[in-house]
Amino acid sequence: MISEPGPQRPVIRVGIAGLGTATKAMLPAFLKHPGIRITAAASLDEEQLRQFHADFAAETYPSVERMCLSPEVDAVYIATPTPFHTEHVLLAASAKKHIILEKPIATSLEEALRMVTAAEAGGVTMVVGHSHSFDPPILKMREVLESGIIGKFTMAHTWCYTDWMYRPRLREELRTELGGGVTFRQGAHQFDIIRLLGGGKVRSIRASAGAWDPKRPTEGSHVVFFDFEDGASATAVYNGYDHFHTTEWTSNIGEWGERVTAGAYASNRKTIRAMSSSQEQALKSSRSGYNGKSSMKYADRDVQQPFFGLTIVSGERGDIRQTPEGLMVYGEEGVEHLKLPQDVNGRDKVVEEFYEAVIQGKRPVHDGRWGLANLEICLAALKSSQEKKEIVLSHQVPLK
Amino acid sequence: MISEPGPQRPVIRVGIAGLGTATKAMLPAFLKHPGIRITAAASLDEEQLRQFHADFAAETYPSVERMCLSPEVDAVYIATPTPFHTEHVLLAASAKKHIILEKPIATSLEEALRMVTAAEAGGVTMVVGHSHSFDPPILKMREVLESGIIGKFTMAHTWCYTDWMYRPRLREELRTELGGGVTFRQGAHQFDIIRLLGGGKVRSIRASAGAWDPKRPTEGSHVVFFDFEDGASATAVYNGYDHFHTTEWTSNIGEWGERVTAGAYASNRKTIRAMSSSQEQALKSSRSGYNGKSSMKYADRDVQQPFFGLTIVSGERGDIRQTPEGLMVYGEEGVEHLKLPQDVNGRDKVVEEFYEAVIQGKRPVHDGRWGLANLEICLAALKSSQEKKEIVLSHQVPLK
Repeated sequence: MISEPGPQRPVIRVGIAGLGTATKAMLPAFLKHPGIRITAAASLDEEQLRQFHADFAAETYPSVERMCLSPEVDAVYIATPTPFHTEHVLLAASAKKHIILEKPIATSLEEALRMVTAAEAGGVTMVVGHSHSFDPPILKMREVLESGIIGKFTMAHTWCYTDWMYRPRLREELRTELGGGVTFRQGAHQFDIIRLLGGGKVRSIRASAGAWDPKRPTEGSHVVFFDFEDGASATAVYNGYDHFHTTEWTSNIGEWGERVTAGAYASNRKTIRAMSSSQEQALKSSRSGYNGKSSMKYADRDVQQPFFGLTIVSGERGDIRQTPEGLMVYGEEGVEHLKLPQDVNGRDKVVEEFYEAVIQGKRPVHDGRWGLANLEICLAALKSSQEKKEIVLSHQVPLK
Repeated sequence: MISEPGPQRPVIRVGIAGLGTATKAMLPAFLKHPGIRITAAASLDEEQLRQFHADFAAETYPSVERMCLSPEVDAVYIATPTPFHTEHVLLAASAKKHIILEKPIATSLEEALRMVTAAEAGGVTMVVGHSHSFDPPILKMREVLESGIIGKFTMAHTWCYTDWMYRPRLREELRTELGGGVTFRQGAHQFDIIRLLGGGKVRSIRASAGAWDPKRPTEGSHVVFFDFEDGASATAVYNGYDHFHTTEWTSNIGEWGERVTAGAYASNRKTIRAMSSSQEQALKSSRSGYNGKSSMKYADRDVQQPFFGLTIVSGERGDIRQTPEGLMVYGEEGVEHLKLPQDVNGRDKVVEEFYEAVIQGKRPVHDGRWGLANLEICLAALKSSQEKKEIVLSHQVPLK
């Protein structure tokens, strides 16, 4: 999909705001794209900036504000902690820089609306991601639906059972009011996938979320029922308490396409429970953040197509499910196995969507209003669970 | 579980009302139980009655009413078409005969209430079944939940994708108002399973049902979200349009424990579509009904444990899923594989529950009020789908 570099290919010069986990995961996709050049970075960590400069000969800044003023920067990748998103998007938009904003866009609709409005007023492109709805099998499912071969979209269902609650976590990841818990952090992926498959316009949500471990008092599970405006429906189930894992049902393939090797049962839960909170913070910090070009390897990822849990999609005349190599499409007459290229992943698709929007003027799927609609689902799911009632939505936007 | 026959074992003499498909499937379980003797049958088909008499030396009657008057009958198994259930239950109850009633109990709550009231007034035991909630893996899941080893029940989710809509069908099976369609016919199994796992007291339902084939205009799919009074939740998804089948995800094992051998893709759908309605009726009739003892074989069924689709059950401290041999229980410390006996199936459990209720006075799980509660879910699911809103329930009863 990503075309070869050529002399005429316009280049977007990207400045990176925040050198944490998200950036570490995103950098390979930027470096792979022939139309992107990394020209700057902003961080509070001087050591990281020094390393980054050595690796990329990029400008370095102690603040996002100052980086936004650089004439060497056309676009900003904002991967700072969620509470800083509004401030940084507003800075970038007023400096007329295009924006890739890490999900979640925000934790309140008001903040998200401020960002969307600022980007629109500044006339800049904003793409919100990465989310797993950019994964090639998911984008391909949408393509199959649009082709009409399984008829009108009717249902999508997805289950994801993981150890999310017992991976080393920063404190904010376990506090709902700061955007923590599985509904904000993992539901956001599921809801984005479902909205993409269903065309975006969800009418209402009915949900239930669970917080079953008093020592990690945020949502570790949820069940969400979606009613689309056109009559289609969907469900998303998540359970992050590290017992059964859905990888048992996805050919032992995880969310990055990696082979999951069965270690000792529930070892993450047991390890985390034996740690103090400060030990956990230290462990998480040691694993996070940019620490040199050499640590940025895809390793064995992407050998198979990624599975964000187990998903089944139906149209009036057929169904679609994932396989390790792509999709199985069950049509009216027969079954077709669609294989996907192995060298493209979801983050490549984020960069591709952003590039095509900025350079070719193509409307991005995952723009600010799309991210806002996704956030509305997260908030509605939590509200529905608390109030035990259906929540009718008002910020949903169509895919096209 | 079923004990050996002994000289002291009391016997229940059973009269069978209706010699159709349900009876054919149920007879082996009656014959296997040492405390049951088949002493009578009622049918409109004289040829069937002659055959039945030859096979079992049983009394035969042209009407259920007359059979209910026989002093040779202690209990009646009512397997007549659903619209006759009320009349036949009232006859049996007023004759003080205990009752096993085939599901669905009825198609309206009013009828179901009349039956329940009549059985209670007559002081007779009524068990409603078979449903797949009697399947040994499901009953064992409930037992694991009650043991407390995975903590309080929190969620259950089940997906069932089959060719239900394209098996040969009688006209009433494809008319919702007569109890047809997958929500009444197959949802009843799923909802019974979920109510059993969750303890019975569902607070509300939000659902969407789909009728995607204009030539078979009844529900062929549904999605149902359950909110239990104690905060637990569940979902049940069904798709009977013969594309993807969940047996692909259940080790190729079907609802009777049978190995599903992959034939030509969608052959049932293609065959049925090529038939006229009268050809289909004739085919269905030729396959249905009692036609001699020799045709009643379990064949290769029950070699594995039955799967009514793919199900995952969670408690606060663990999960449970099925395996071909039994259950995998994911607890706090480790995983346990519980194997189940191979020679007991769901219909054996119906007879066992009925026998223990009549002879030992044990309260049956699947009594009339339980069946009524199940019907309420079916009706609420259809209503929620039509009105696009949550339906709060009022006839739910606890398991214990």
